[in-house]
Amino acid sequence: MPSNLRKDALAIFRAALAAADPYEAILRRVRVDGDALTAGRRRYNLAKFERICVLGAGKASAAMARALERLLGRRIARGLVNVKYGHVAKLRRVSLNECGHPVPDEAGVYGARRIAELARDAGERDLVMCVFSGGGSALMPLPAEPVTLHEKQETTKLLLACGASIHEINAVRKHVSGIKGGQLARLAFPATVVSLLLSDVIGDDLDVIGSGPTAADSSTFGSAKSILEKYGILERVPAAVRERIERGADGEVPETPKPGAAELARTQNLVVGSNQLAVDAAAAKARELGYRTLVLSTFIEGETRDVGRLHAAIAKEIRASGRPLKPPACVISGGETTVTLRGDGLGGRNQEFVLAAALDIAGLDNVLILSGGTDGSDGPTDAAGALADGATVAEARERGLEPARYLAANDSYHFFEPLGKLLKTGPTNTNVMDVRIVLVA
Amino acid sequence: MPSNLRKDALAIFRAALAAADPYEAILRRVRVDGDALTAGRRRYNLAKFERICVLGAGKASAAMARALERLLGRRIARGLVNVKYGHVAKLRRVSLNECGHPVPDEAGVYGARRIAELARDAGERDLVMCVFSGGGSALMPLPAEPVTLHEKQETTKLLLACGASIHEINAVRKHVSGIKGGQLARLAFPATVVSLLLSDVIGDDLDVIGSGPTAADSSTFGSAKSILEKYGILERVPAAVRERIERGADGEVPETPKPGAAELARTQNLVVGSNQLAVDAAAAKARELGYRTLVLSTFIEGETRDVGRLHAAIAKEIRASGRPLKPPACVISGGETTVTLRGDGLGGRNQEFVLAAALDIAGLDNVLILSGGTDGSDGPTDAAGALADGATVAEARERGLEPARYLAANDSYHFFEPLGKLLKTGPTNTNVMDVRIVLVA
Repeated sequence: MPSNLRKDALAIFRAALAAADPYEAILRRVRVDGDALTAGRRRYNLAKFERICVLGAGKASAAMARALERLLGRRIARGLVNVKYGHVAKLRRVSLNECGHPVPDEAGVYGARRIAELARDAGERDLVMCVFSGGGSALMPLPAEPVTLHEKQETTKLLLACGASIHEINAVRKHVSGIKGGQLARLAFPATVVSLLLSDVIGDDLDVIGSGPTAADSSTFGSAKSILEKYGILERVPAAVRERIERGADGEVPETPKPGAAELARTQNLVVGSNQLAVDAAAAKARELGYRTLVLSTFIEGETRDVGRLHAAIAKEIRASGRPLKPPACVISGGETTVTLRGDGLGGRNQEFVLAAALDIAGLDNVLILSGGTDGSDGPTDAAGALADGATVAEARERGLEPARYLAANDSYHFFEPLGKLLKTGPTNTNVMDVRIVLVA
Repeated sequence: MPSNLRKDALAIFRAALAAADPYEAILRRVRVDGDALTAGRRRYNLAKFERICVLGAGKASAAMARALERLLGRRIARGLVNVKYGHVAKLRRVSLNECGHPVPDEAGVYGARRIAELARDAGERDLVMCVFSGGGSALMPLPAEPVTLHEKQETTKLLLACGASIHEINAVRKHVSGIKGGQLARLAFPATVVSLLLSDVIGDDLDVIGSGPTAADSSTFGSAKSILEKYGILERVPAAVRERIERGADGEVPETPKPGAAELARTQNLVVGSNQLAVDAAAAKARELGYRTLVLSTFIEGETRDVGRLHAAIAKEIRASGRPLKPPACVISGGETTVTLRGDGLGGRNQEFVLAAALDIAGLDNVLILSGGTDGSDGPTDAAGALADGATVAEARERGLEPARYLAANDSYHFFEPLGKLLKTGPTNTNVMDVRIVLVA
């Protein structure tokens, strides 16, 4: 493997990780200068506020709260953030409440109720700073009474079993929640709300990240009911859920705040970390290293081995014709692919992506492909991903490792491990999906 | 569907087809001016040659021979081209021999033997113009004696059943052939040979197009033997095949001409039509229409629905962030995808590509995706492909056509037909694989 290509690819990936770091991400997009707090393009005069309260939920939210403590220090009056068991940070002003993820538990409900109370308690002269990241939905469960946590989970399970899309599931969930779909912002109204988001979803839709506790919700009780009817499960969801949704559709329960709602006029949602921002940082690093650089897309989904082959096809075109870029060239993409399980091997979507691509770039000089998950953990493995170049397949075969066999068995980890081509970062405490890098020198 | 986007996409696709037309392709790359014949970058003085002979094989080779008759007219002394039954053209000097495809037959062997004789008969002061296109391998079968056509086909079937790659199959086939792997050029030596190729293979490797009758062969009897051993079928192939390959590996049979061989020094191979050239023509047309244009890759293979989703992801990125191009933008790709059959519907790789992409661009404004096979026939249908925009999924649902269901059943034809979104060109008498077009205005 050309050592500089490998070195460069790792440097580019590390630049993406740095941009996705929850603590750094906030310090990069939020500044405090005297009494002026700047969040993205908006500016706030801190002298105008009586109290600052920090609320939030998510796997990375402890680190995000720590960044706010660094920025605001003793100006923070109080705060509560729901985090996954063990995902803690040392905080002085903001309390952490550890709870269940991915399956929500009563500790989560307890914390969510307390978060709702703190929001409701905020007045016109208060500033509520929110921090949400991936996992925020499961970590801040607050079923609307009289729905219980168990009944809400039953509903989600039924929708999943029907093949409902994530948007459909969210539309229903927001309407049996007392805090999602903009309701946290409404509770805080008329306080000023600045919500900082670390996005782990494609497209960074504000109402999808953590189910959008501070974002306008365009779904309605009516659409939630239609979804349950579409899948023929309106009669099968728990009675409390059905009743709430039917009463809501009849106008007897207040709707979630809609786009343009007055209750959201004092709320700013700011994406501080995302796949796009990570990919941008990677692209900036690649350009700095002298590569002609193209960002393909951050919306990439689909079967990882085919997406991998397509990246290999781009590398081959660059090598063959200098299109779409002349070498030295770097193509970067983001998003999150999926794996269809065919065998019982060990691997993850990023490692399998690289394995499929390796077969197609076999024999090419000065071509390298890397794919890594920004959370540092690809599938059930201790690697974030892998990297391969045009010699990898030949090296593997010399050692008796037939790549096609490992690919057929979804066993990418055991293919790359003996070759020393796993990408290992350790846990990164963030997640903005995946970053893929193609280098052609 | 924005009428100008549809109109533009069709114009761009037509530009690709025009560049792939076998007759036009030769007229574009070969010129005769008085006694000067220019083929690509090389120039020949026709006054130096005593006789000009035209040889060839392939589905498009009749049209290619017709272009040579237009250029050279009565200067052509004689010629013979093997074509598929019915794939004829009106010729004056060159004879056509119709034969079996995709399964070769004795008519093909008869023609191939005659082609070999004409080549052998050419002398130092003769010019042999060859025309090869897709199907040229099956249409010019000349098993090396004593191997029979049947034995050669048995060998191919065994290799296919083992999962051998096309490169491995070709390496074996060339070594049981009397004409492939550069041997036709060797037969013609010391005549001058100008071989015009219409490529239907990814990468346009000269030794792969029609099994490379006039191109240097880097595979050997030794590698052919290793391949049969690798799959454990050296003892299972017909005895005549095994004997020839073993004797060849022991140096008792002359090798095919290798790169740098003196017998190929007077041979020029020129790709006149290919997916790359078609994609280039499409890109030029798109630029002319005012689109910022990017050629993604002409090496694209893999499962069509995932490749389709990746093209949709690029469209979404362009819409969301203006990357990698700002609208009005056009992304073009080539190559040939595959379909894994899941249902028993009617469709083809291009139509299924567009169906999968349509789901992902649903709701986007001013986005259109087209995919078409340059042969005008996508799968077993009368359509070349299809096109869709951001409104297509909604239009379909209004008519009760659920796209996911048609995708699951591989039934893309019946999805697009009632919507009027099939791409129909009729038979084009050429094949340079597929062209895909993404427009974002």
